[in-house]
Amino acid sequence: MKACIIAVGSELLTPLRVDTNSLRITERLNEIGYEVRHKTIVGDDVDDLTEVLSAELLSADLVICTGGLGPTDDDITREAVSKVTTRPLEMHPEILERIRERFARRNLKMADINQRQAMVPHGAAVLENVNGTAPGLWLEHHGKPIVLLPGPPREMIPILEAVIRDRLAPQSGGLGLFRRVLRITGATESDVDARSQPVYSRWQQQDVPISTTILAVLGQIELHLTAIASDRATADRVLDFAVEQLEGTLGSIVYSVDGSPLEAVVGDLLRRTGWRVAAAESCTGGLLTSRLTDVPGSSDYVEASAICYSNRAKVDWLGVDGALIAEHGAVSDPVARAMAERVRVKAGVDVGIGVTGIAGPGGGTPGKPVGTVAVAVSTADVTESRTFQFIGGREQVKYQATQAALNMLRLLMLGL
Amino acid sequence: MKACIIAVGSELLTPLRVDTNSLRITERLNEIGYEVRHKTIVGDDVDDLTEVLSAELLSADLVICTGGLGPTDDDITREAVSKVTTRPLEMHPEILERIRERFARRNLKMADINQRQAMVPHGAAVLENVNGTAPGLWLEHHGKPIVLLPGPPREMIPILEAVIRDRLAPQSGGLGLFRRVLRITGATESDVDARSQPVYSRWQQQDVPISTTILAVLGQIELHLTAIASDRATADRVLDFAVEQLEGTLGSIVYSVDGSPLEAVVGDLLRRTGWRVAAAESCTGGLLTSRLTDVPGSSDYVEASAICYSNRAKVDWLGVDGALIAEHGAVSDPVARAMAERVRVKAGVDVGIGVTGIAGPGGGTPGKPVGTVAVAVSTADVTESRTFQFIGGREQVKYQATQAALNMLRLLMLGL
Repeated sequence: MKACIIAVGSELLTPLRVDTNSLRITERLNEIGYEVRHKTIVGDDVDDLTEVLSAELLSADLVICTGGLGPTDDDITREAVSKVTTRPLEMHPEILERIRERFARRNLKMADINQRQAMVPHGAAVLENVNGTAPGLWLEHHGKPIVLLPGPPREMIPILEAVIRDRLAPQSGGLGLFRRVLRITGATESDVDARSQPVYSRWQQQDVPISTTILAVLGQIELHLTAIASDRATADRVLDFAVEQLEGTLGSIVYSVDGSPLEAVVGDLLRRTGWRVAAAESCTGGLLTSRLTDVPGSSDYVEASAICYSNRAKVDWLGVDGALIAEHGAVSDPVARAMAERVRVKAGVDVGIGVTGIAGPGGGTPGKPVGTVAVAVSTADVTESRTFQFIGGREQVKYQATQAALNMLRLLMLGL
Repeated sequence: MKACIIAVGSELLTPLRVDTNSLRITERLNEIGYEVRHKTIVGDDVDDLTEVLSAELLSADLVICTGGLGPTDDDITREAVSKVTTRPLEMHPEILERIRERFARRNLKMADINQRQAMVPHGAAVLENVNGTAPGLWLEHHGKPIVLLPGPPREMIPILEAVIRDRLAPQSGGLGLFRRVLRITGATESDVDARSQPVYSRWQQQDVPISTTILAVLGQIELHLTAIASDRATADRVLDFAVEQLEGTLGSIVYSVDGSPLEAVVGDLLRRTGWRVAAAESCTGGLLTSRLTDVPGSSDYVEASAICYSNRAKVDWLGVDGALIAEHGAVSDPVARAMAERVRVKAGVDVGIGVTGIAGPGGGTPGKPVGTVAVAVSTADVTESRTFQFIGGREQVKYQATQAALNMLRLLMLGL
């Protein structure tokens, strides 16, 4: 079954806005067996939209439009659909009443202009919009559904979910796509592929096939598994097994199989071990602790951190030995270790982290180029350190350094 | 002149990827007078792309395709264009030689598969790709240019810039769209609109008209000005005047007219005044200092910061009076002031910032709901503080708090 998505709105054709609705629509359509063949963005022009709609109705089994259902002259979706399907626009008294009520509840009088939103192509079914004035509309043209949804995601999403559940899923009956994402850090893309390929290559031929895509994102690798199955329960069964196999093969480099970000995984481990943490950050400038504190409830395990940007601060605030900095340089394993140890003792916590590096663009030397970052984690029993060489600009280096530090803390807590 | 953009790639039809190339292409086309009428995303299917290309060539004056120029069977753009234009694919010896050289420079042998990238539709001109193996291609079909660009932005952008400069701009001759963005913080969207509307409403009717759009983004308002002019010099003249008028009307709430983010504007001011800064962060968890240190060269003015997440750290690390916290609560003007003052003295810098608040979702009380944030800035001469009430989730509150703190520092340095 082939679907196409049309996003209507001149603002989506400027460099100022990105259409994000279609990502969600695609995911939900995939699950009930629709393949999305095209996505098109069209401005607020009746003729343009009419042309695109006519073309898509020739090849697609389902057309979903978002946007263009507002009350102004620029909102042309209803009119274009009326033209293409040759169904006249008619005033729908119930919609009008609901819009009036909506305004009345907020002690406002409905503007005349809003009457436009009650005009519907003859025979269209109304899809209730709980978060706005413009309802969604459903109509069929030569047996092919056309679904009109409002543009604002807050209004679009509940209507989409209802139309999938009540109208599209029951009659789809086909095979759907269901996804899982394994998140991995501390390995290269080619390494992950070499190790996992013998495992996942077997799954393409099975009864419920799974296809696999590797995506290298900043500081992590993602393995996307897509199962083609008749329903979610069947997909879950094969995907659970597949995830288990890959985790067994890849081991500790997999940090999450449920979409959790690394800071949440580390937060769970800290909570479970009952440890409190403190960091001494130089090149990351606070980003490491900011990520740790992005997790709700992180005050349970984050005590404090010192951002020691200057060498003076490393010595005066933390008590790192100035001679150590002079001997090894501020960006070095020994200084990262001293930072982690000192911040742990100073904050009176169970584990300390030290990060010092060269984020660039300036400050690099032949021996320590931009992207060199030393990271250490320290408990009362053990201090571990490692120097990394990251690529990319300043913000990329900062982010990768926080990813490496969080991962070293994770592995330490797992006893690996 | 009407243009359409086609992004080719099945991955762009999944929920995993967003096409960002088209934003840049739109902006550059707008500047030379092309209106982008549609953007379409098509999977790696020759028939689908052929169909979309044929349809677009009926109505558009220019078609730009991105992606599908790689070496594998999935890369079908060359083939589809060859079909639509009925120009056979031919091996292009110079491209082949360049690809071979590219591999040789990295001591690699070119794989046979890469020969595909040297196949071009008869008569197409080659657009050099300095950052990759697949060159761009330019051909004309019934007088309409078709431009094929590689998908990776790093490869696409230089070719786009060259093709605009050398081939499209010289023959466009029409009116272009030129944009400016004013960034504003510390005011509401309706307030900005009420104050600026009498100014910008006059510009729609002038010889070189300017249209204005207001965009409310997290912690800031953007005013987008778009001039329609025959060339950049003319547009610059009216836009410079318009920006000056708006700055005069809106005053100090405008922090940037050249796209600079607030942390860079504040960094410039710190550098100019010769001040060094330190922060004491609680609810922002390091995000404030991380933003300050996102700016290259910020080690010139960022000394150190203390992330005092627990009350104990506020007392032990900074020396904030425990009785003050007990009396007013950790989230209060007096505690924010004490944090700013103490961190300034402790770090031996010119200006200190204190931020303490409730990021949520837990921790709110009727008197101090989630989103309550107290911010203070302190110099040897003066300490100023203010309590804000932000809305949104945890990360939104954190970000708005950093925005408010940076803005208070900016206004203090400007003597406002």
